[in-house]
Amino acid sequence: MQLRHNLFTRSGWEIEEREFVADDLVNNGSSYMVGNGYLGYRGTFAEWTSSQYVGCTVSDTYDTADGTWKELCNVPNGLYLQPLVGGERLSLFDGSIEHYRRSLNFRYGVHSRELRWLAAGGARAEVSDSRFASYADLHLIAARCVISSRQPVTIRLGIDSEVWSLHGEHFSSFNPVVQGDHLLVEAVTSEHADRVAVAHSHRVISDAQPVRVEQRQEVRSVYRELGFAPGKGDIAIECFMVVYTSNDLEDPVAAAVAGLRDAAAAGYEALYADHCGIWDRAWQKSAIEIDGDPRAETLVRYNTYHNLIATPAHTDHLPIGARGLSCQAYQGAAFWDQEIFNLPMFIFTDPSVARRILTYRYRTLDGARKKARDLGYRGAFYAWVSGDTGEEICPSYFFVDVLSGRRIRNHFNDWQIHVSPDIAYTVWRYYTVTGDWEFMLQYGAEMVFEIARFLVSHAYFKRDKNRFEFIRLLGPDEYHENVDNNVFTNFMARHAVGIALQTWQTLQERAPDRLDELVGAIGMDRDEVREWRAMHELIYIAPVDPQTRLIEQFDGFFDLEDILPEALQERLINPGEYWGWPNGIAVETQVSKQADVVQLFMLHPDVYELETMKANYDYYAPRTQHGSSLSFSVYAIVAAWLGYRQQAYDFFVRSATVDLFSTSKAVSGGTFIGGIHTAACGAAWQIVVMGFAEMRLADAELRFSPRLPAQWHSLRFFLQLRGAMLSVEVSHSAVTVSSAASSAETVAIAVFDARSTVEPGGSCTIRFADPVQR
Amino acid sequence: MQLRHNLFTRSGWEIEEREFVADDLVNNGSSYMVGNGYLGYRGTFAEWTSSQYVGCTVSDTYDTADGTWKELCNVPNGLYLQPLVGGERLSLFDGSIEHYRRSLNFRYGVHSRELRWLAAGGARAEVSDSRFASYADLHLIAARCVISSRQPVTIRLGIDSEVWSLHGEHFSSFNPVVQGDHLLVEAVTSEHADRVAVAHSHRVISDAQPVRVEQRQEVRSVYRELGFAPGKGDIAIECFMVVYTSNDLEDPVAAAVAGLRDAAAAGYEALYADHCGIWDRAWQKSAIEIDGDPRAETLVRYNTYHNLIATPAHTDHLPIGARGLSCQAYQGAAFWDQEIFNLPMFIFTDPSVARRILTYRYRTLDGARKKARDLGYRGAFYAWVSGDTGEEICPSYFFVDVLSGRRIRNHFNDWQIHVSPDIAYTVWRYYTVTGDWEFMLQYGAEMVFEIARFLVSHAYFKRDKNRFEFIRLLGPDEYHENVDNNVFTNFMARHAVGIALQTWQTLQERAPDRLDELVGAIGMDRDEVREWRAMHELIYIAPVDPQTRLIEQFDGFFDLEDILPEALQERLINPGEYWGWPNGIAVETQVSKQADVVQLFMLHPDVYELETMKANYDYYAPRTQHGSSLSFSVYAIVAAWLGYRQQAYDFFVRSATVDLFSTSKAVSGGTFIGGIHTAACGAAWQIVVMGFAEMRLADAELRFSPRLPAQWHSLRFFLQLRGAMLSVEVSHSAVTVSSAASSAETVAIAVFDARSTVEPGGSCTIRFADPVQR
Repeated sequence: MQLRHNLFTRSGWEIEEREFVADDLVNNGSSYMVGNGYLGYRGTFAEWTSSQYVGCTVSDTYDTADGTWKELCNVPNGLYLQPLVGGERLSLFDGSIEHYRRSLNFRYGVHSRELRWLAAGGARAEVSDSRFASYADLHLIAARCVISSRQPVTIRLGIDSEVWSLHGEHFSSFNPVVQGDHLLVEAVTSEHADRVAVAHSHRVISDAQPVRVEQRQEVRSVYRELGFAPGKGDIAIECFMVVYTSNDLEDPVAAAVAGLRDAAAAGYEALYADHCGIWDRAWQKSAIEIDGDPRAETLVRYNTYHNLIATPAHTDHLPIGARGLSCQAYQGAAFWDQEIFNLPMFIFTDPSVARRILTYRYRTLDGARKKARDLGYRGAFYAWVSGDTGEEICPSYFFVDVLSGRRIRNHFNDWQIHVSPDIAYTVWRYYTVTGDWEFMLQYGAEMVFEIARFLVSHAYFKRDKNRFEFIRLLGPDEYHENVDNNVFTNFMARHAVGIALQTWQTLQERAPDRLDELVGAIGMDRDEVREWRAMHELIYIAPVDPQTRLIEQFDGFFDLEDILPEALQERLINPGEYWGWPNGIAVETQVSKQADVVQLFMLHPDVYELETMKANYDYYAPRTQHGSSLSFSVYAIVAAWLGYRQQAYDFFVRSATVDLFSTSKAVSGGTFIGGIHTAACGAAWQIVVMGFAEMRLADAELRFSPRLPAQWHSLRFFLQLRGAMLSVEVSHSAVTVSSAASSAETVAIAVFDARSTVEPGGSCTIRFADPVQR
Repeated sequence: MQLRHNLFTRSGWEIEEREFVADDLVNNGSSYMVGNGYLGYRGTFAEWTSSQYVGCTVSDTYDTADGTWKELCNVPNGLYLQPLVGGERLSLFDGSIEHYRRSLNFRYGVHSRELRWLAAGGARAEVSDSRFASYADLHLIAARCVISSRQPVTIRLGIDSEVWSLHGEHFSSFNPVVQGDHLLVEAVTSEHADRVAVAHSHRVISDAQPVRVEQRQEVRSVYRELGFAPGKGDIAIECFMVVYTSNDLEDPVAAAVAGLRDAAAAGYEALYADHCGIWDRAWQKSAIEIDGDPRAETLVRYNTYHNLIATPAHTDHLPIGARGLSCQAYQGAAFWDQEIFNLPMFIFTDPSVARRILTYRYRTLDGARKKARDLGYRGAFYAWVSGDTGEEICPSYFFVDVLSGRRIRNHFNDWQIHVSPDIAYTVWRYYTVTGDWEFMLQYGAEMVFEIARFLVSHAYFKRDKNRFEFIRLLGPDEYHENVDNNVFTNFMARHAVGIALQTWQTLQERAPDRLDELVGAIGMDRDEVREWRAMHELIYIAPVDPQTRLIEQFDGFFDLEDILPEALQERLINPGEYWGWPNGIAVETQVSKQADVVQLFMLHPDVYELETMKANYDYYAPRTQHGSSLSFSVYAIVAAWLGYRQQAYDFFVRSATVDLFSTSKAVSGGTFIGGIHTAACGAAWQIVVMGFAEMRLADAELRFSPRLPAQWHSLRFFLQLRGAMLSVEVSHSAVTVSSAASSAETVAIAVFDARSTVEPGGSCTIRFADPVQR
């Protein structure tokens, strides 16, 4: 099935391109990447170098090289492999391509290529290669390459340390060595002198064996050259790249060498089998099946794949980067995206992963406390851009006024406070879905208390109006900085303080000793809880207008110029202009970058009446420019609830193809923002499950109000809920929930207004009438 | 004495130029203007037209023509007079100028010219003309012109309605008519259909009489042409222009015709005599004599002249414009300049004028209440730019980003709140100096109550810090918008609330019925006073740093980049760039547009220790760019107090020559800002009396701590204090205060630490040792 020009799928579990298009380098490097949450390896080819944006981005390697951008390192490329065919360098940019197929299989995370190439000088070769980033050994990438030619072939392969880096040289030294069978580069980072070891080995598994082997040791890199005589048949080589850093363990070199030895001993096939077993288990939890719409099914799988490989599920001290490990953009750091877009899928399908990622927020509490302190607040003001320590690493300046060349101060790092309540929201959601009280005791309570303390210290009280207000905000709509009482922020803040109060009360009842301990540990005065109560009661939330049902995005929003994004765009002098604050074209208008009031509905679906959501959706949708990849999914979900099936489907497709169709620009205001939009990837699952199936957990009941796209026959997905393992099948006329025999609890189910329960090992079907099918 | 190139004075009571320089047109038009507080007539020549920025700006003619700028009208020019000599138009731009003198006598407000002109074709003429804007009849300008030539002369004179207008055509219709002896144009304004009548008549008083008289009536204008035969001797003509508007009285045409008839009957000389008598009385109050520095004396007189003619002393419903009546710039409107820079001279020398101008603020209370209401506050939020109604007429957009051509939203009209407490300060100062309790009862109390209500409704309370704060301000330093707790604003707000509390208490004691009435009239709840007390007690005022003694201008100011204005200027891409918010070069630096913390000292000289003032002056002075004409005088005054005599003198000269030497630019960010800087004019008196003589009223005692510039022998000025009429003479060794026999009170005097009293008709001399003279 063709998905778009030069993009196909055969089984719905892969994407494939059939022409090589040099212009797609940057985007395809991300789209076709492999990874495993520890490292990401871009969808580039073995013979490529930094000029083609080759990058192996490794987690937990934060380094600041240019004084501004702390980001992850791209480590030396241990899978470099350049064939020379009849003396000519095989290159997609020279000669001619007689046959080309490149695919990414996301069932098992395998990148493959088939190539028949004719050199300018007449030599011809066929290449077929593949690689995967192992889930069985997160430090390993295994590759395989088969070359067939009638010409003599020389293969240069090894470790290329001239890597692509967005913001400066992150390594102060390189030590390339040859140790017996394997090549090794030890590089040391500039800022913290972290040691990164990259090891490479290969084995020629074909009958054709090299007649000549040479070592090439350069200042940074190290290679072997293998000379093959012609006429000996296909050349088949397996390569292994192993990466360790001193943030993983004390001696990364020794670990890399040992890992390499094990890998080479096992060989590609055996390693791949181990790896596939892990993927099988992952897909059991996260796969969504859609009967009747293979295209949609492919899109959801593609996005789920990227959400999975972006997530450092192996540890509790690392974040999900906004661009995952697809490149260095967004600093390998967590934004609110992590809690609101990436984690819901895990909370509902694989809560132990969600727990680990949320524990990262606990481990970075000190960074959040420091940020609060530095800015004159109390408690925990989570970083807008959160790396390993949780200290704020969002630079104050990165946008450039392209018209003058002057830098622009952004206020993401000091005015966009909603990340703290967003985290509290997700802690509570995790607790509600899993019932993991242990997590709340150990981590969650401290986080939500510190978040409440921050919010109370940030708020201002208007005595004449007897209400708390939040002043000088940046809400989700990032074109409007310096606004007051952004309703999303205020609402989330009230919700977060409410969570703190509930947690406080529950601790008082269930674990008063732990409460005492906690209060002592964080230096809390019990009187502070009175302020939480006051704030919870008295914080201002913009009201629903009784006539129009509209909710004003922030104070004075409706007084701004009312113009639509298409008309506004005409005012651009330069297409690269930043639209937002302080002086971009959108600032004085009602054009929003992304969902804001509608984002509030998405997170609090049961608060406002449907008619209110509808009125606001209708108002804000045309005024939203979707300048953020977070926007489409929010509109898709709420559109689904409103019964706007076509809009919901269209927004779903726009959200799910941001990366696949490369619909968003790679550079904005002078800053590289390419790479995989992991939030949109995480959101695909939510659009289907929480949007089209309208699954919600409320009053300990699992509710569905499905409004599937007309062409979908049915939908199947998996849920975990408080120890119950549930298979859910949704059609236009029925919802069936089956509970595994191993489930720990009976689950109450509602479909629209009909109710039932499912016991462990049992199943229940609730029928309903979908108006679209009648 | 030469003041600078092409600028002389003979007696110290006039300025004179001796060359005609076409480049100085705009500035000289203001500098040499005549006026009387009702109208201003620019220092242009009779034969000039709108191309030379001829303008007669008339008070109380506010009109919006371009939809943005409400401004005063320039009315048709009733003093147009164009000689043709031997058939050639006399013009300073053609032919050659054999002799040229142009002067402004500020003793009596007379503009004069002597000219000997040789036409390109060989005709020669001598012209001498003069004019004054009458103080005896504010609607009248009288002019006289003597022309001497051997050639036949034709004079075209009358009313030229093609007037200069900054922002659009303010008249929707013109009705030019000839009524017997006089010419008349009735013009109707666009916005409110105000009728403006300009009448002109002339009489030829020479033996030489016209041999031919013709009328010329055009669509807008109306003229006569007088033909003179050669050889009849000098031609002498008197011209009279009378202006009335329908805002003055019901029938402006009839009034103008009647005024014209009276004027023509009296003739120039008699009218002039009446006029001079009024100027004599004005100068008795406001003149400053400086022995030993005729240049300084001239500067002070020049500035005082402009402060006087800018002031609509004849009425209590009009403001002093920031550019007076010198042109339409700054919309003929009051800014805080009025209270802080223009009025102190009147409060101390002619309090009835100060009373009238302050009553204007009372009459515009409804406008201030409307502004508060519109922006969500209570009480009176005075307009940043205040015209006839007191409603805000400051456009939201006028600066232009010269690099992109995009408009910039300024926040003068919503964030620069300090104008309200500035007015309260001046109301209280007026009351303190004059003892005019009647004013407080009738007007002042209501104003200060409404200002306090506004401030309380604007402030936010930080419950965790137990203090009120002001958020999102624009202080006097206009390069830094959107700041918190600007210390000037917060301090002035506390002071204003303190004034309201004192006024409340005094009313309770002295006039409880009036208090009841007032509370009812403004719908006040007596509980509000509790909030005033709370705010007065708990408002945050940035502390003096115990180590450095520095006071931070606003929260976070000291964290901004520390760079000096000279270095910062290098960053300009275009010299026309606006330096301020949101993205000008000064925004992220400590470079201030004008005095801010130092401005606080100037208004509250007895609050901070001298060492603190010194430390802050030393810190802020080099970081101040003096981008406002208000800046120099503030630094001059505080420098004088600190004993920085040379700096004080230098700042005095810079302040007093802003207009005379044309040191500030006429256009900024695309907006015309030329014209007379009346604030600097009003400040000249303050620098001498309150700066160098360090006169203060404190604890009902008139205190002097003189630190005169070394070259000044002595200084004399007049003061009125609670009914006492005082002549003050200050030298380097003594202060002598003499009280008129008609004085109503005995006055307590202190000079440094020595004390005495002066009774009506008495005099006292207190000697002191000035360190500079020892």
